[in-house]
Amino acid sequence: MSGSTTIIILGGTGDLAQRKLVPALFELVYRGSIPDDLRIVCFARSDYTSDAYRDFMWNKVREFHDLAAHGDAWRTFAQRIHYVRGDLSKPEDWGALKQSLQGLDGGIDAPANWLFYLSIAPWLFEPALRNMSAHGIADETNGWRRVVIEKPFGHDLASAVALDNLVGQVFDESQVYRIDHYLGKHMVQNLLVFRFANAIFEPLWNRNYIDNIQITVAESITVGDRGSYYDESGVVRDMVQNHLLQLLTLVAMEPPNIADSEALRNKKVEALQAIRRHSGVEMARNTVRGRYEGYLMEQGVPPDSITPTFAALRFFVDNWRWRDVPFYLRTGKAMAEKVSEIVIEFQAPPHSMFALDAGETIPSNLLRLSLQPDEGIHLGFQTKSPNTDLASMEPTNLEFHYKSAFGDLSIPEDYERLLQDALLGDASLFIRNDHIEEAWRIVDPLIEAWSDLEVSPLHIYPKGTWGPDAADALLAQDGRRWRRYH
Amino acid sequence: MSGSTTIIILGGTGDLAQRKLVPALFELVYRGSIPDDLRIVCFARSDYTSDAYRDFMWNKVREFHDLAAHGDAWRTFAQRIHYVRGDLSKPEDWGALKQSLQGLDGGIDAPANWLFYLSIAPWLFEPALRNMSAHGIADETNGWRRVVIEKPFGHDLASAVALDNLVGQVFDESQVYRIDHYLGKHMVQNLLVFRFANAIFEPLWNRNYIDNIQITVAESITVGDRGSYYDESGVVRDMVQNHLLQLLTLVAMEPPNIADSEALRNKKVEALQAIRRHSGVEMARNTVRGRYEGYLMEQGVPPDSITPTFAALRFFVDNWRWRDVPFYLRTGKAMAEKVSEIVIEFQAPPHSMFALDAGETIPSNLLRLSLQPDEGIHLGFQTKSPNTDLASMEPTNLEFHYKSAFGDLSIPEDYERLLQDALLGDASLFIRNDHIEEAWRIVDPLIEAWSDLEVSPLHIYPKGTWGPDAADALLAQDGRRWRRYH
Repeated sequence: MSGSTTIIILGGTGDLAQRKLVPALFELVYRGSIPDDLRIVCFARSDYTSDAYRDFMWNKVREFHDLAAHGDAWRTFAQRIHYVRGDLSKPEDWGALKQSLQGLDGGIDAPANWLFYLSIAPWLFEPALRNMSAHGIADETNGWRRVVIEKPFGHDLASAVALDNLVGQVFDESQVYRIDHYLGKHMVQNLLVFRFANAIFEPLWNRNYIDNIQITVAESITVGDRGSYYDESGVVRDMVQNHLLQLLTLVAMEPPNIADSEALRNKKVEALQAIRRHSGVEMARNTVRGRYEGYLMEQGVPPDSITPTFAALRFFVDNWRWRDVPFYLRTGKAMAEKVSEIVIEFQAPPHSMFALDAGETIPSNLLRLSLQPDEGIHLGFQTKSPNTDLASMEPTNLEFHYKSAFGDLSIPEDYERLLQDALLGDASLFIRNDHIEEAWRIVDPLIEAWSDLEVSPLHIYPKGTWGPDAADALLAQDGRRWRRYH
Repeated sequence: MSGSTTIIILGGTGDLAQRKLVPALFELVYRGSIPDDLRIVCFARSDYTSDAYRDFMWNKVREFHDLAAHGDAWRTFAQRIHYVRGDLSKPEDWGALKQSLQGLDGGIDAPANWLFYLSIAPWLFEPALRNMSAHGIADETNGWRRVVIEKPFGHDLASAVALDNLVGQVFDESQVYRIDHYLGKHMVQNLLVFRFANAIFEPLWNRNYIDNIQITVAESITVGDRGSYYDESGVVRDMVQNHLLQLLTLVAMEPPNIADSEALRNKKVEALQAIRRHSGVEMARNTVRGRYEGYLMEQGVPPDSITPTFAALRFFVDNWRWRDVPFYLRTGKAMAEKVSEIVIEFQAPPHSMFALDAGETIPSNLLRLSLQPDEGIHLGFQTKSPNTDLASMEPTNLEFHYKSAFGDLSIPEDYERLLQDALLGDASLFIRNDHIEEAWRIVDPLIEAWSDLEVSPLHIYPKGTWGPDAADALLAQDGRRWRRYH
């Protein structure tokens, strides 16, 4: 990139800026992963000087990160941070912001790149975008202009299309970086390398060898003090429409010819398009919704809420590769553990040459791709038990753990990876508008079916469990069960 | 087995009895893996009483094994050991041995099983077998009769056939257990479970996905004080004809319908039969022989010896599964490390979607099955490097180690496994006569080609290396190299 680069955080005093964005930028500069002439401009309504804002941020950064040892580095880094006070719904404040940016760049025509990060409430999207349009923010005459947008990307298909149209009026799609921090997880990216840089997995990666696929994203926390926000969205909008469908597409997608952002994202959208559609009773038959005990007592939750905090879903991907292989997805709050993982359950061996007891079968191989807390790969296979006859075997694992392979510090945080990519102009790990819209086409009928308690009962589950029994029954109907090793 | 069982060690004062057989039997009884009414009769020419022999053996056992803690157990075990003095070439001494056995069994017609273990020099095989014949040792009227035979099984095809004929005149083939202690190694048996109790490896286990297979059995020791014996056999008879071809058959064999001893051994013999035959110059072109520096100075080695101490071989298995996949075998003495392993090198991915530098390719997956010193499995695969762009990857391993999975003590020694199987009548891990003979059909032309220095040069290699450079050149001709991880 020629010219200096400035990242402008809209909502620069907010939670995300404090916890994720500024620490990630600090880390990236500290490690030399991005140009050290990067400037950071934080734009918000609070009354700070740049110095006061730097102090405010240092206190917050230290609160959430183990960065105390980097105090000297912070002081150098902090000189790159500037604070601009303003209201992003006011055109005149945008004028002031633009002037400040040009001042920092060294003039109106100085070559310079701007990355706007919209870390703001959904209802501020429209005024912010209209003001960006009015001030010609997207004009790339003097350097590139990009915008990073955080979810929610609408709350259904219609609102998502409206938002995309609004964004499209200001920016070209190539300038837009929609972020799902799940795609910044190292193991999520590794899924592409695992599948497509190894010759031995892809031949097995289809309905001939795979029995079913299970994706679990479990949170142990409750909605806490976010009850009012959460109750508006529920588990489908909060987790399924974005994170879980992202993971599904990465497992299910066909190999792109090249790993550029358009080819990759084309293949992901094609995978979404292949998901079998249901509605009404048929949708309810393939899904289980749950709510943890005590949810109605959470602050901000209406007493007549029927918002689910748990979902278990059976999806099918209708193409040559996956026809009739179930994709079981589950996610929820107040669950037994915080864990995100993808389990590939292979078919059992077609024939046992080993003498087995009556009714006994050889267990199937399980490939477990762990996203968190452990980042690693576990390939379950049968091995001969020591000290016993030839037919005695036990399931064990071939194991890979990022931390033991590469050390603790080397795996970048989700936002580091994604901010770096956005600065480099690599949109591979960001979400394209057609992906967002297709995901809504899949979950809108689910939300609709779940709005009717007659069609889809709401199962209550105790906190600290793996969800309602009905989630187990969903797999038991198919003669299967949720698979975990520990 | 009804009736008591006696194992009769012919050559009961020898090295093998001291180091392997008696310790293995002690361990098996100690762990309860074989009936504790087993009797052990040692037959040899030295003048011992049973008590003196027990003391002699306890001192030897303690010398080679960490069994000091088991003194009490030994005293109980030792009561099952009896010594019979005699010369196995003398008919009258066999009469005395048979009487002793019948006395221990409780009478001439008492139901009892006898397992004869021939731990004797090759030239004693014939007189021993003739005396066994004369005394009706193989008669199973009162219980089963079995014989365990140690290598060498002849020194070429003709002598092996002669030996098999002699054995066949005394015993039915079903009574004969030819031992290759490599088949007692846990990982060797696990190879069958790995291949045939897991659904995910067998689909890849063929010429469509495998580029080549490498089998290394390296010893770091020299011939030491066994120069006179070794020079007679050389590396082909000492290692290739038995251990290396055994490993090759286990990797290459088709899946048997059932894991019984005949079905298993049929498939192994079929694999041997499929090995492409060469002779003369063509054999020399596919093989490299070496001798370590200083071999001629070893005690007992004739100064004009051309006996090789190292072999590197390129074999092909001509069937639908393996056509044109090279099997590279190497083995030798005085090498860099003591290591036995099988490496399956898969084909490289057919296409890289990731941007690579000019001339760069994605490394192929390597499956490394380690027999010793580590017993484990290492599956090399590409993973995304942390902290770098999407196309950056590093080879790393999915790992399984028996010791960490099952603990140190739980893996039985080679001879424990094999003695237990012989006592149980399971011949799966023993070698059938047709296997022996087919192996000689393969190596006789090799030995023949190597008898002529004009046809096959003898490459000298320094001690403590991986053999002569010519062994690397053998693979380099094919654009390949010997693969190890560490």
